[in-house]
Amino acid sequence: MPDTADAIVQSINFNSTGLVPAIAQQHDSGEVLMMAWMNPEALSETLKTGRVCYFSRSRGKLWRKGETSGQVQKLIELRWDCDADTILLQVDQRGVACHTGRRSCFYNAARDGKAVTIAEPEIDPDELYS
Amino acid sequence: MPDTADAIVQSINFNSTGLVPAIAQQHDSGEVLMMAWMNPEALSETLKTGRVCYFSRSRGKLWRKGETSGQVQKLIELRWDCDADTILLQVDQRGVACHTGRRSCFYNAARDGKAVTIAEPEIDPDELYS
Repeated sequence: MPDTADAIVQSINFNSTGLVPAIAQQHDSGEVLMMAWMNPEALSETLKTGRVCYFSRSRGKLWRKGETSGQVQKLIELRWDCDADTILLQVDQRGVACHTGRRSCFYNAARDGKAVTIAEPEIDPDELYS
Repeated sequence: MPDTADAIVQSINFNSTGLVPAIAQQHDSGEVLMMAWMNPEALSETLKTGRVCYFSRSRGKLWRKGETSGQVQKLIELRWDCDADTILLQVDQRGVACHTGRRSCFYNAARDGKAVTIAEPEIDPDELYS
């Protein structure tokens, strides 16, 4: 969707550093997998290729999710909010989303008055980045 | 959970403006409702009261969700991610989350090469803020 991609990128309110937060949700289970950031180029590429691309703030460059780990995110549908300042990605996550080897990055929770770990790694991180 | 609340607030990596993004998800349906921001005080209050409180960047003060609209968010479980720089709130949303009167703020989508509205208001916004 080349025309739509450009129009959507134009309509998004990127923040003062040129980025917009993007939430990735597994499209069928509803599980929230991760939150990362996109610049206009990452958003445009994601819309045009159907494969999720973020902008890595630590590395200062495009981050094609899964490019080193193989844990790619196929875009099912891209949504955005009322203020056009947050993206919600409906994705199909291959393998795991988290660099720790867990399916979701949100594996810490406050339960019964304690901070607990609610998910364990499914893949050894050494395997992801070897 | 007073002790846990303080410990969790201490462990979160707030950004350079002292805020952390918080995603609200309806705990049973999995629907992502909105994304807003918390400062340490908002996070602490949310954990201690069980009612979600954000920090309004536009108003520069605590925003107890539903304080004017009545559309409160009851906290079911608070989670955070691998980098401790994003919060995921499992909530029970009374009524609608969006100021437009829609259940979710994410009502814009790219479908079939077009930007479309995928949800309509359930409540007249004038009713929410009268």
